[in-house]
Amino acid sequence: MSDRKTIALDAMGGDEAPTIVIRGADIARERYPDVDFLIYGREPEIAPLLNKLAKLKAVATVIHTDDVVRSADKPSIALRAGRGSSMRLAINAVRDGEADGVVSAGNTGALMAMAKFVLKTLPGVDRPAIAAFFPTLRGETLMLDLGANVLCDGRNLVDFAVMGNAFARCVVGVQQPTYGLLNVGSEEMKGHEALQDASAVLRESDLPGEFVGFVEGDDIAKGTVDVVITDGFTGNIALKTAEGTASLISEYMRRTFKSSFFAGLGYILARSAMRKLRKRLDPRRYNGAIFLGLNGVVVKSHGGTDALGFANAIGVAIDMIKYGIVERTRADFANLTQTAPNAQAVTG
Amino acid sequence: MSDRKTIALDAMGGDEAPTIVIRGADIARERYPDVDFLIYGREPEIAPLLNKLAKLKAVATVIHTDDVVRSADKPSIALRAGRGSSMRLAINAVRDGEADGVVSAGNTGALMAMAKFVLKTLPGVDRPAIAAFFPTLRGETLMLDLGANVLCDGRNLVDFAVMGNAFARCVVGVQQPTYGLLNVGSEEMKGHEALQDASAVLRESDLPGEFVGFVEGDDIAKGTVDVVITDGFTGNIALKTAEGTASLISEYMRRTFKSSFFAGLGYILARSAMRKLRKRLDPRRYNGAIFLGLNGVVVKSHGGTDALGFANAIGVAIDMIKYGIVERTRADFANLTQTAPNAQAVTG
Repeated sequence: MSDRKTIALDAMGGDEAPTIVIRGADIARERYPDVDFLIYGREPEIAPLLNKLAKLKAVATVIHTDDVVRSADKPSIALRAGRGSSMRLAINAVRDGEADGVVSAGNTGALMAMAKFVLKTLPGVDRPAIAAFFPTLRGETLMLDLGANVLCDGRNLVDFAVMGNAFARCVVGVQQPTYGLLNVGSEEMKGHEALQDASAVLRESDLPGEFVGFVEGDDIAKGTVDVVITDGFTGNIALKTAEGTASLISEYMRRTFKSSFFAGLGYILARSAMRKLRKRLDPRRYNGAIFLGLNGVVVKSHGGTDALGFANAIGVAIDMIKYGIVERTRADFANLTQTAPNAQAVTG
Repeated sequence: MSDRKTIALDAMGGDEAPTIVIRGADIARERYPDVDFLIYGREPEIAPLLNKLAKLKAVATVIHTDDVVRSADKPSIALRAGRGSSMRLAINAVRDGEADGVVSAGNTGALMAMAKFVLKTLPGVDRPAIAAFFPTLRGETLMLDLGANVLCDGRNLVDFAVMGNAFARCVVGVQQPTYGLLNVGSEEMKGHEALQDASAVLRESDLPGEFVGFVEGDDIAKGTVDVVITDGFTGNIALKTAEGTASLISEYMRRTFKSSFFAGLGYILARSAMRKLRKRLDPRRYNGAIFLGLNGVVVKSHGGTDALGFANAIGVAIDMIKYGIVERTRADFANLTQTAPNAQAVTG
């Protein structure tokens, strides 16, 4: 009996596919010697890359398809017309038990629509969510939803809390995670109805860890809680605002160090420390958006990442598989339905 | 006839009131020699501060009141019970024509509720909004609403666009401002109904400048548009997420330069350039949240700012007065009602 795991890769997703996918898989292959790869996409483009990477080739199987989901395709179109696409075939592999998880750097909306259609949501889960890690003063914080669901009711937010909580315990290893709802103030009466509904349910729930109530935008970077819960509209705006602010400050820094001879000299002296800082804030380090609530492991890589970033996204999928996130989430939802029937009552 | 302007100050608002208010007024007095001050608050606390500042004392009048709106007071309570408070009396001075504008570092919700009640909104404006400047790669971007209205319909967002547009032209001096609606994607069909409604109206409107459609979270720091329009919930989350991210990176930087002898030496060499960078990102520079859509000039200072930050908030109020923002906004709404009756039709 082998403990080997298999990852299905959509080789055709992302700005520089299939190059970064294959090179990323090779980095992941070094890190995880017990992983095999199923690589879906255009064989004539994939084979030359793979031929240069003998060790990867030894643990990889290429499944050819000409069909590709484009980044501009609408999810509904991709769902109907993309049945033979590399993205769809890679997801099918998880459904059919041929792979333990799938990673794609392609169209997020199409990936979510296909994953939901093919793999289905877990029992008790109304809608899956997209989660990712944010760097904070205290380590890392998981936030969800980051864009799968523009409109959410209280029930959806409660579901996201259960999923995020399960992930924090099972994959991150925080036994008693703290979690809070993203709002415009921490007072009990703040925010819209969905937040009030979700807060009422979570205050009464017996989820492990501590529900701290409402948290604000600056609590994300402070690391006030292990898990920040929000709707997909707000989460997406917060994610991109944080990314934009970080880029702005990096650019200001670059200009600062170039602004005078002494500043340039200072940079040279501080270079090794600055490199550590850059590494800490490296977006590639946080690459790998996690699809939660599905009956299978699905990870979305940033479309503009490089091989290292793609390898990190594969790493996220492998962690989710090894720590059994799907089984943990399924068990938590079964438990929630039995002990907190209120959670089902706020469906708006 | 004199061209002197008068600013009413709530001396009791903010963490270190009345000290920072009085010291801030003295800095503003130096910058704006043609401004007089009406200072509302506890005279026994204000007088000793003012006695040390002879030049400020010469252009200031203190109006004593014991009553103060506390930072934890609910707006509705403050509105009923705070009729004799320093905040309320300072707003009354604008209504009564004794002052041209009011600045307070007190409770934001109470200030907005009182200002709306006492000064009223401009004709055609359903709800006032809170606006502020964000530093960007291309200069500064104005964003509104930042928290006055948690729930907004399309009509509200259109109103915010008109107000922000007027401010950009009249106070910032951009003749043809670009403006966009904050959304989770730039494609036409993205986002919730209020955004779709507002976008449809703004595409057809003849506001000066250019409506670019939807912008995303990272467009704020990129400076893609002069004015970013959003609801108060999303705007507040974006503002605080940006502040949190900036603080996080500052803290990482501080640790980086302290992490080794060479890094520390590098910092010393780059110090003068770093000082410029800090100045550029100094939150005090962006202090002064602008209340738009009211029949009078109201500026909210951050409660935790210092004298320099408070002086900057006074400067924002003086600019709004000098450039006639209230008259400009009134004229734009009159014009909009005549030429684009659709704007009134999206009321949800």
